[in-house]
Amino acid sequence: MPGCSCHEIDFGIDVSVNNNHLIASRDPAHPANMICELCRLFYTNGWCTGTGGGVSIRDANKAYIAPSGVHKERMVPSDMFVMDLESKEYLRKPAKYKASACTPLFLDIYNIRDSGACIHTHSQNAVMVTLLFDKYFEISCIEQIKALPKLTEAGNLWYSDKLTIPILENTEREEDLSETLQQCIIDHPGTTAVLVRRHGIFVWGENIWKAKVYNEALDYLMEIAIKMKQFGIPTVRE
Amino acid sequence: MPGCSCHEIDFGIDVSVNNNHLIASRDPAHPANMICELCRLFYTNGWCTGTGGGVSIRDANKAYIAPSGVHKERMVPSDMFVMDLESKEYLRKPAKYKASACTPLFLDIYNIRDSGACIHTHSQNAVMVTLLFDKYFEISCIEQIKALPKLTEAGNLWYSDKLTIPILENTEREEDLSETLQQCIIDHPGTTAVLVRRHGIFVWGENIWKAKVYNEALDYLMEIAIKMKQFGIPTVRE
Amino acid sequence: MPGCSCHEIDFGIDVSVNNNHLIASRDPAHPANMICELCRLFYTNGWCTGTGGGVSIRDANKAYIAPSGVHKERMVPSDMFVMDLESKEYLRKPAKYKASACTPLFLDIYNIRDSGACIHTHSQNAVMVTLLFDKYFEISCIEQIKALPKLTEAGNLWYSDKLTIPILENTEREEDLSETLQQCIIDHPGTTAVLVRRHGIFVWGENIWKAKVYNEALDYLMEIAIKMKQFGIPTVRE
Amino acid sequence: MPGCSCHEIDFGIDVSVNNNHLIASRDPAHPANMICELCRLFYTNGWCTGTGGGVSIRDANKAYIAPSGVHKERMVPSDMFVMDLESKEYLRKPAKYKASACTPLFLDIYNIRDSGACIHTHSQNAVMVTLLFDKYFEISCIEQIKALPKLTEAGNLWYSDKLTIPILENTEREEDLSETLQQCIIDHPGTTAVLVRRHGIFVWGENIWKAKVYNEALDYLMEIAIKMKQFGIPTVRE
Repeated sequence: MPGCSCHEIDFGIDVSVNNNHLIASRDPAHPANMICELCRLFYTNGWCTGTGGGVSIRDANKAYIAPSGVHKERMVPSDMFVMDLESKEYLRKPAKYKASACTPLFLDIYNIRDSGACIHTHSQNAVMVTLLFDKYFEISCIEQIKALPKLTEAGNLWYSDKLTIPILENTEREEDLSETLQQCIIDHPGTTAVLVRRHGIFVWGENIWKAKVYNEALDYLMEIAIKMKQFGIPTVRE
Repeated sequence: MPGCSCHEIDFGIDVSVNNNHLIASRDPAHPANMICELCRLFYTNGWCTGTGGGVSIRDANKAYIAPSGVHKERMVPSDMFVMDLESKEYLRKPAKYKASACTPLFLDIYNIRDSGACIHTHSQNAVMVTLLFDKYFEISCIEQIKALPKLTEAGNLWYSDKLTIPILENTEREEDLSETLQQCIIDHPGTTAVLVRRHGIFVWGENIWKAKVYNEALDYLMEIAIKMKQFGIPTVRE
Repeated sequence: MPGCSCHEIDFGIDVSVNNNHLIASRDPAHPANMICELCRLFYTNGWCTGTGGGVSIRDANKAYIAPSGVHKERMVPSDMFVMDLESKEYLRKPAKYKASACTPLFLDIYNIRDSGACIHTHSQNAVMVTLLFDKYFEISCIEQIKALPKLTEAGNLWYSDKLTIPILENTEREEDLSETLQQCIIDHPGTTAVLVRRHGIFVWGENIWKAKVYNEALDYLMEIAIKMKQFGIPTVRE
Repeated sequence: MPGCSCHEIDFGIDVSVNNNHLIASRDPAHPANMICELCRLFYTNGWCTGTGGGVSIRDANKAYIAPSGVHKERMVPSDMFVMDLESKEYLRKPAKYKASACTPLFLDIYNIRDSGACIHTHSQNAVMVTLLFDKYFEISCIEQIKALPKLTEAGNLWYSDKLTIPILENTEREEDLSETLQQCIIDHPGTTAVLVRRHGIFVWGENIWKAKVYNEALDYLMEIAIKMKQFGIPTVRE
């Protein structure tokens, strides 16, 4: 835009310190920018109010992670933690925040599944589903199921396939979930998400776009399952 | 805006290839722009989260169709498929997307009804209604019914007319719906929409504005019908 | 903003014809602009989807009225009808629209109550309340009641006062409501709104701001009343 | 932004009168700007429609308070009241508004708890909870509880801790709540909020960010508690 600088944004980020070059980019698709944009959207959807929830994107051997205790709809790229996935050392730590308690769980997922992004929400639909189902959230014969992957073979689930998402018991500290989460992911090679009772959901995917689709489709399916329960309609068709 | 180019947008579209002139327009009412705008609105309404749903607009003998697997709220005109309705050949195909599985169904609707636009959503109200009603969604004596057309004669339904929308059984593959959808539209000359059990709704109209009104009015009526069922109030007044 | 015209808007309205000077103003508080702004807000609240509902603002002896069949969230000032309240003649009529069927009802309200604005919505809460209550919507002992006026004496209702909104039976044609609406307003000098069974609500006030507050407060109260009914809690405290 | 003034905003505020320098700032984090921004957000969340609710931020010995009867989503900094907390005199009073009836209650909170901000909403979740619970809103074993502070000792509640929010009886006039509110805050040193039966909630915190987190987390917990009640699930786990 020659001759007019009115849309130029000064990042106000000193890229010479704290590895700030890792989070300063004008590309909206850069992980640091994308996490901020998606957190605003997820806040609006009620998935991370009250600083709940979290998002991480992997970029080769680096993981970008939203910090703990941040107002998700107000996050900026300079709030971001960046970790080296080999050394597990932080390449960048914002002074004013603590690392997210989800961090070890995101690392478990990256480690076991080689996924490209993880989304964790406190979605009310997720919490309600863990109160209405026992060890698994199960639903079949709803078109939206076709947005979820089979994983154990190529392609997505069919309309009449039964979607099954395991439900873990919650722990007092988020990091204490790590062991059972790992075992659960290993035991369920066909799942792209794990529910945590009275807590929320962890969803992952090959990249942030797949993770976003899976998360939206699952939230839709959990919402309709709750409505079906209210009308006494079984969520799995016989 | 002479003297300041700050609102000038560079499309970044090379109009000399891939028939890109078909989708590059600064007119917000151009089909390629309008589909993007409406998909953003429909995403916000929860009608096409998780890449569900679809929209098509007909422009003379060309059909503009949103692609498969796209995040509907992030769609841009260059994502658009354009088909010649006579030859059924694509005039334009974006390399990175597959054609929507709704395409044959939209073509059926254009073919049988000479409509100007089709909307397909996975609206939760539509899915719930197919779980609560048998072969037809029926409602009468709600003012909003007056937004729907009679079609078999001029003008819209009256307040006390019974609105009737047929419900088709879903199929494993969306394209397999084609035959029953065609028969259903032929058998119900007074309907401007068809529900698909455990799947969603197809709505069409003379043009995109009519299709939008019908879709919004139907979603409103399905929502109130579900609430009436919750309170044990019959949706058809005797 | 000298030296940069990038925020200058060209109305594209020829003010020399069709009394267009009546609707062309850069003042956001001008009735033609305000109606457009509020219709966008009301659309978002679900009060006028599918072209339902309507808004009118009185400016001395002129009434500004949104047209029939318009997508409320897309309305522009040039869509507006303007009527001389003495002669009941249109000072301005947009060629592409029909006058709203609410027009005679808005005129009744201006005539009987000397109000400055009328809002008509198809709010689902309003429709549900007319299905759950008989001749009057009644509620007491909810703080939000204090936003509504007493009218028969100065000041607003108290917390423990019983709010009473009359419910009219609907008619096939909106204009046929005129006679019963007039009688109802005369018979209930303490009401600032009338519900219409299976249709919606008409709300009015001294000016558009008061009408907006009354409409929002009533919608809030109707929403909570429906929830109270769901839990079997009486809406009027004994 | 040299060379282009198109993003320059002229406040149109004469800072030489009425202590207007107290509310004129380009800093989005200034209390006068922040209250306006948060009121827009809270309006969208349905927490202060119909001019209900209120927000106050303390800046050293000055309290900024939103006025009475204002459309919360349209508030501007010049609508703000500013009070000296020592003299209890207004440093600034907008001519067109009355002081909020919440003012004495906000002062009670500042006085007893030395908090930095207070939020008062008419949230439907808050009102419903006061209809479904007796003297206390109680919930345990929901992850979001961990967003609330213990106060009587350092740190936040744990997952399995029981959150307890006292419920006061409402009074005809808001200011008449002052005495019981004061006693209630003194009697419950571990609470950061008080519910008022059939009215709403008062939430406070060390600063506006903490108050916002507590308010969002409480609203989330009240919403899930109502859903649990609908399904007959106890909100406190045994």
